[in-house]
Amino acid sequence: MLKANNPALSSWIAVSADSDFPIQNIPFGVFKTAEKAPRLATIIGDTLIDLAELSKAGYFSALDIDTAVFSQTYINDFMALGKATTRAVRNRISDLFESNNTELAGDTQALAAILHNIKEVEMLMPVQVGDYTDFYSSREHATNVGTMFRDPDNALLPNWLHLPVGYHGRASSIVVSGTEIHRPKGQQRPDDSQPPVYGPCKLLDFELEMAFVIGQSTKMGQSISTAEAEDYIFGLTLFNDWSARDIQKWEYIPLGPFLAKNFASTVSPWIVTLDALEAFRTEGYEQDPEVLPYLKYEGNNNYDINLQVAIQPEGGAPHVVCNSNFKHMYWTMTQQLAHHTVNGCNVNVGDMCASGTISGPTPDSYGSMLEISWRGTKPVEMPDGTQRRFINDGDTVIMKGWGEANGVRIGFGDCSGKLLPAL
Amino acid sequence: MLKANNPALSSWIAVSADSDFPIQNIPFGVFKTAEKAPRLATIIGDTLIDLAELSKAGYFSALDIDTAVFSQTYINDFMALGKATTRAVRNRISDLFESNNTELAGDTQALAAILHNIKEVEMLMPVQVGDYTDFYSSREHATNVGTMFRDPDNALLPNWLHLPVGYHGRASSIVVSGTEIHRPKGQQRPDDSQPPVYGPCKLLDFELEMAFVIGQSTKMGQSISTAEAEDYIFGLTLFNDWSARDIQKWEYIPLGPFLAKNFASTVSPWIVTLDALEAFRTEGYEQDPEVLPYLKYEGNNNYDINLQVAIQPEGGAPHVVCNSNFKHMYWTMTQQLAHHTVNGCNVNVGDMCASGTISGPTPDSYGSMLEISWRGTKPVEMPDGTQRRFINDGDTVIMKGWGEANGVRIGFGDCSGKLLPAL
Repeated sequence: MLKANNPALSSWIAVSADSDFPIQNIPFGVFKTAEKAPRLATIIGDTLIDLAELSKAGYFSALDIDTAVFSQTYINDFMALGKATTRAVRNRISDLFESNNTELAGDTQALAAILHNIKEVEMLMPVQVGDYTDFYSSREHATNVGTMFRDPDNALLPNWLHLPVGYHGRASSIVVSGTEIHRPKGQQRPDDSQPPVYGPCKLLDFELEMAFVIGQSTKMGQSISTAEAEDYIFGLTLFNDWSARDIQKWEYIPLGPFLAKNFASTVSPWIVTLDALEAFRTEGYEQDPEVLPYLKYEGNNNYDINLQVAIQPEGGAPHVVCNSNFKHMYWTMTQQLAHHTVNGCNVNVGDMCASGTISGPTPDSYGSMLEISWRGTKPVEMPDGTQRRFINDGDTVIMKGWGEANGVRIGFGDCSGKLLPAL
Repeated sequence: MLKANNPALSSWIAVSADSDFPIQNIPFGVFKTAEKAPRLATIIGDTLIDLAELSKAGYFSALDIDTAVFSQTYINDFMALGKATTRAVRNRISDLFESNNTELAGDTQALAAILHNIKEVEMLMPVQVGDYTDFYSSREHATNVGTMFRDPDNALLPNWLHLPVGYHGRASSIVVSGTEIHRPKGQQRPDDSQPPVYGPCKLLDFELEMAFVIGQSTKMGQSISTAEAEDYIFGLTLFNDWSARDIQKWEYIPLGPFLAKNFASTVSPWIVTLDALEAFRTEGYEQDPEVLPYLKYEGNNNYDINLQVAIQPEGGAPHVVCNSNFKHMYWTMTQQLAHHTVNGCNVNVGDMCASGTISGPTPDSYGSMLEISWRGTKPVEMPDGTQRRFINDGDTVIMKGWGEANGVRIGFGDCSGKLLPAL
């Protein structure tokens, strides 16, 4: 077991039982305040820890690292130090904040500059994303979509069980939780017998996804095997792949989704390391037909992480519309990355690969309104008496994710975004 | 007419009649040598001009700019100065190298550091590409593909005449001319009655494209109109969208091309400014059915730029297989950018948007081997007695582009890449 993952650890910082951030988590993010320029942070309970100040006070001096990485705008250069080093940093932070350690706990002067209540800071986009890829790896989601739009008896397309279908998405419009999103405008063709029309999207949806972040670059021509893949994955984040269904339906043949997706995607502010998720490893799906050798893998490469989506109407309370789990992935992250690079495509530190909508086997676990409302035929009844087929202006979509094992709960923080009317 | 475009200008640097780089061009690129770290350059004839040294010697001191932009690894920060400033720099360079100007021509000491023979330097990737988009905007290309793979009587898909179809591509694997490319490996299904197989691509193709480079960023939610679009386009480059046809065929439904494209794309080393191409403006296609208002445009938004592709076998001479023209674009760059941002998708300085394969109306103007050899049914006879249906290991694909007007020829420099065997 990794040292920082020990369930017996507790911190001298208060952590409530339902917190996403016990001392066993130690995720990485970026924040700023009115006085502080953007820099790296971690979090325990509701207490944000300024890593630039922690470094400045000398608490990383025993580690052989360029501490300038903590004062940057993104965590990319920190990740690029490599897993041996980032693991050492995580262990050191764990040590410093562990209940019995008085080294930092007694340094009142340094602590004044290091600690912030999470409510007093602004979290920023943690990663500079070079390339963003979206997969389509939940069998239940692909089956639901195929059943709705094609043939229930042949819901999966011929390639789906042979390779993790994926496509490139837009990096520029990936934003951090809390960023407001405007309903996109664009071309749609609601009536096939009439010409297309222009206007605000009428079928605005979320997609419940997780994304992994690349922590080590490759060169063009290099491939990453399934066995090596986790060495290249620094950590995970929640990912809302906002989707304009009416724009998508009209534009996507034959080259895939474009304007239906690239207006915005939302991520949670903390990158939770793959290390911190070790206890949630679980078996993957049995894959039949047998996959080609380059897609075979060993061990438990799926992760048991509870996922939840709520819709909060303007002035109302959040209403949960989906309870899913990251374990509902037919194709594992290791298979996705092996497939992505089998042709020699190079990856860079900061690249993001999202899972595709994560739907479970039951209707209450479907990861998009398209599936939950079954193309609008089964509207969701909201506590305030309204209905939702898709997302309304003024709604905030809130995603949460957390694993629980050995009495320790590791979470991601909210991935939320409010939908504003079209500009 | 822009001052630097005057056809009457000549330079005190020798320029041969068939050069891509008369004094009226002044493109921007990035180079390095054994002694010099990467920095910005322009070129006249075969003489590369080191802009960092030119700036250091004080020749830009009358311009109010941060000259640090000339010492960078990419031209992004230079472009971000805005068109008023980059135009002033282009005019100033034009002045300095104009035949009657002795200001710099007599400064022997400075010139020794400023000028290089192009053969003595290594050209680098000129732009740091944040996001890369590929369009599909040649009607002839889309019709050829539709005729081959679907129905000759309904070759264009229903959306094609209503919007410029586009999709996101991979930025990390865009490389500069001269970079060798390895044949990609991956999953294919040559026989639909058998399971898919893994191995080197057997149908490796080029796609003749041009790409425009964004010189001004927008914020999420902002749209660029067709009238504004050219203000956001800094310049153009040649673009080879290498394509693995067998991988593409098996993977691309329903989310578009992925591994078939993302192993490599090649660009020419110089970004030719839109300003320098002013004389080549030409009328666009008549668009029927009428497009939606946001896609309407005024004036001549197409460009008459000759495009040529040659295949050079190992040890042999280049053999021209395609003569096309950038004017064969049904959708203009202004329409592409207006469509791309109509939903509020933000663009950043350095983003690249490629045209899609540019095929003309006749078989000798088709922009890919898929079309030239008509799926391999009409092989190209090479001077050495061999045939080409697609690209062989050891072949170098060389693209050229140039416009001619008023006795001035403006070109792009080669966009070439050699195909090596699979690793």
